[in-house]
Amino acid sequence: MSRPFENIAFISSTTEETVLVRQKLAHRFGSVPPDEADVIVALGGDGLMLQTLHRHMNSTIPIYGMNCGSIGFLMNEYGEDGLIERLENAELSEIRPLHMSATTSDGKIHEALAINEISVFRQTAQAAKLEIQIDDKVRMEELICDGALVATPTGSTAYNLSAHGPILPIDSPLLALTPISPFRPRHWRGALLANSAKVKLVVKEPNKRPLSAVADHTEIRSVLEVEIREDTENSCIIMFDPEHGWAERILTEQFRY
Amino acid sequence: MSRPFENIAFISSTTEETVLVRQKLAHRFGSVPPDEADVIVALGGDGLMLQTLHRHMNSTIPIYGMNCGSIGFLMNEYGEDGLIERLENAELSEIRPLHMSATTSDGKIHEALAINEISVFRQTAQAAKLEIQIDDKVRMEELICDGALVATPTGSTAYNLSAHGPILPIDSPLLALTPISPFRPRHWRGALLANSAKVKLVVKEPNKRPLSAVADHTEIRSVLEVEIREDTENSCIIMFDPEHGWAERILTEQFRY
Amino acid sequence: MSRPFENIAFISSTTEETVLVRQKLAHRFGSVPPDEADVIVALGGDGLMLQTLHRHMNSTIPIYGMNCGSIGFLMNEYGEDGLIERLENAELSEIRPLHMSATTSDGKIHEALAINEISVFRQTAQAAKLEIQIDDKVRMEELICDGALVATPTGSTAYNLSAHGPILPIDSPLLALTPISPFRPRHWRGALLANSAKVKLVVKEPNKRPLSAVADHTEIRSVLEVEIREDTENSCIIMFDPEHGWAERILTEQFRY
Amino acid sequence: MSRPFENIAFISSTTEETVLVRQKLAHRFGSVPPDEADVIVALGGDGLMLQTLHRHMNSTIPIYGMNCGSIGFLMNEYGEDGLIERLENAELSEIRPLHMSATTSDGKIHEALAINEISVFRQTAQAAKLEIQIDDKVRMEELICDGALVATPTGSTAYNLSAHGPILPIDSPLLALTPISPFRPRHWRGALLANSAKVKLVVKEPNKRPLSAVADHTEIRSVLEVEIREDTENSCIIMFDPEHGWAERILTEQFRY
Repeated sequence: MSRPFENIAFISSTTEETVLVRQKLAHRFGSVPPDEADVIVALGGDGLMLQTLHRHMNSTIPIYGMNCGSIGFLMNEYGEDGLIERLENAELSEIRPLHMSATTSDGKIHEALAINEISVFRQTAQAAKLEIQIDDKVRMEELICDGALVATPTGSTAYNLSAHGPILPIDSPLLALTPISPFRPRHWRGALLANSAKVKLVVKEPNKRPLSAVADHTEIRSVLEVEIREDTENSCIIMFDPEHGWAERILTEQFRY
Repeated sequence: MSRPFENIAFISSTTEETVLVRQKLAHRFGSVPPDEADVIVALGGDGLMLQTLHRHMNSTIPIYGMNCGSIGFLMNEYGEDGLIERLENAELSEIRPLHMSATTSDGKIHEALAINEISVFRQTAQAAKLEIQIDDKVRMEELICDGALVATPTGSTAYNLSAHGPILPIDSPLLALTPISPFRPRHWRGALLANSAKVKLVVKEPNKRPLSAVADHTEIRSVLEVEIREDTENSCIIMFDPEHGWAERILTEQFRY
Repeated sequence: MSRPFENIAFISSTTEETVLVRQKLAHRFGSVPPDEADVIVALGGDGLMLQTLHRHMNSTIPIYGMNCGSIGFLMNEYGEDGLIERLENAELSEIRPLHMSATTSDGKIHEALAINEISVFRQTAQAAKLEIQIDDKVRMEELICDGALVATPTGSTAYNLSAHGPILPIDSPLLALTPISPFRPRHWRGALLANSAKVKLVVKEPNKRPLSAVADHTEIRSVLEVEIREDTENSCIIMFDPEHGWAERILTEQFRY
Repeated sequence: MSRPFENIAFISSTTEETVLVRQKLAHRFGSVPPDEADVIVALGGDGLMLQTLHRHMNSTIPIYGMNCGSIGFLMNEYGEDGLIERLENAELSEIRPLHMSATTSDGKIHEALAINEISVFRQTAQAAKLEIQIDDKVRMEELICDGALVATPTGSTAYNLSAHGPILPIDSPLLALTPISPFRPRHWRGALLANSAKVKLVVKEPNKRPLSAVADHTEIRSVLEVEIREDTENSCIIMFDPEHGWAERILTEQFRY
């Protein structure tokens, strides 16, 4: 295999420690700006990784994370030696994000992408009331809750798991629709949907019960309705060391307890 | 039995409908200001009832709710006829609230009472990290979550139920400690504690991960730690029609699905 | 479309009512023995349907169920008129069963197929201890429980649902591995696996803790280990009225509560 | 404090190891038959302890368990030295068992006691159908399930926990009614009942769907109905080292995950 990664961009989170790590690696391997790179090496945790994936969406530049500090589900193990070989041997996974189209009370439509999940959550102490439509058909007339979320397989181990949703195998063509602290129906556990499904969450009594919508870290406040579906036009590429690839990570996660 | 309720105070929520109901009842039965009353009749829903119980804490004036509109767990059925007899025959239940003592980052201590529950919840997208102490002993070193709550039996059918906590019989000497969207430990389901227990929730990394504490509807933002225990000095009195008393309501609720 | 269904075999469960229904329909539409039929119409409930699918596995004869009595998840609505048109318009779904290979303490290997699920369950009051392997790798060293099951999407709404497993979309390439009354790890919720996965359940202390394995209704007692995987050689064909096809049924089921 | 325990009965389970331990302790401290003893020291695990508590019900002889082998929730730590002092310092807890009255299809009534739980479970592949009465009032007309159980606080960490029931503080005046693999209502989570409650489980379609009832280890097959309540006449006494008493064990258990 020919050397594919001549130009590496090292980026890091802003903590003193990771900045030092970045400087050391840049000195050793050379570093170019991200838009001139063949590969981006992200040094930090899952937060930085999500940010980087969003920033380089559709750039076709693959992103290789190395974990500095707390354990990162999206990151590879930290190590300086043999980095070039690790990059060459890494497995590439394409990630399709979710697309959110949120209508606010001023009539505007806000679009955003999410790699992990799109969630809605009450802005005040008033519980949320949601109507849930799947492919333009009302499936639940009223869910009283703190909120609800739609997660990708990638995101199924994140907020979705906390909200008692199931972990999805990484290559399963599914989305998880999961209620957050449901009050009525009281024991509804959510649904697994085909990844071709279009989910619409309609906010009831939006003045009395304002909701915000969040696509990964993009928050839109006072939404009236939110449309969510898998984005078929955008994608980004994440790299994992073989033997610790994504399928393996998810499987390991499912047997944790 | 001698007539105990000569002076009734009718109060209501502010919707046009309940105001009209209040005026009608006041005209028919007479109405005095709450602090001159033998009994307060509250017209509205559970929100008004909670508010009224808080306002007249320790006044020894019993409070009888009549439901106007959506179903109220703390309310009796609406009806004008025979109201005096219903008041005379009602069962009185004493409610001991929870006491919250919340320390904020400016060093101040804020106290508040709660009839339903005391909860903490993340203020930003950053997950909360909590240390949990029971009776001054650390029982969980780190709960990563959206938040956590302590509920009374009265409140066990409210937010606690949404957060997947158990419904408690009304006269059980227990408190429910329930995590809200727990992330690590991922499947921790909370604990049932003796009502003599003192719960302390210590916020970890409070600058990065700010939390607010809420006692029923009183919110204190950016708390450092929150101490919660049953209040043994304060109480209020709620009235229920016999045959639809509180024990029966809770039992019915447990067999709903 | 040419008339595909000239020869119908009507079969029924043994209750007096369904036998009468079968006789009436056979009289009206004619009936042939199942092995001469173009289509089998099964009159009864899900139990009969499962039995019929098993009996005609690999026969390529499609099976159309009509519900007599209690609601059947695998059945179409009962109706005599227009039956030929309904058969012609029905959607055909191919079902791949699970294959079980169970080794017993006498050294024999027992094979069976399952359309819904393969489960193991303790035979005595002694809890089961299971080692779980996925694709020949130990993923859980010891699960103490009443038992465990592997369900297909078809079976995900049956025993799997009672054991708190998730409902799977009908065409998702997944299997659900779900513990039954798990004791240690106490809150393990099971795993969603790719349908290419091979699951092996190894019984620990089989003399003290005997287990039986059940593939749909075939029970093998005192098993030492059970291997489960999707069967790629066998299949059967089930028919549903359009608009009430399987995808719709599963989706409806997910929004029930 | 005067020496209360002059005569000790050492008993053990039948494994070679515990028999040797028993002989060693009997040689060192002397041993009398249980009915002449001031205290019984039981050497083994929770199974032996339950058996011993049942055997000496109402004898007023306290029972002190020492754990040999796997961890025992009802047992103290194993140790030979200072045994007399440990017995003298141990805390005594009185246990009230549950009383089962099970009617079988031959018209007989079978009575048994349970320290942990009384459960009913299907005898065949046919799901159970139960009607649930509390204090002679029907609270659930039909629960379709594998079975159901009523657990004491002592038993709440045993089978009840596996069936997803809550752990109860040891001195809470409660019983846990918990469904086992419920099918309809599908997400019913059971109920916490006052310990004065009388639970009656009525078996529907008992010929088609036979059920057995189990009080700890006593099994009665083919029951028609089962009445369960706390026994107010019988009791037994269990001993725990201070600092590792029962309240502490339950609290620790609640914070395990």
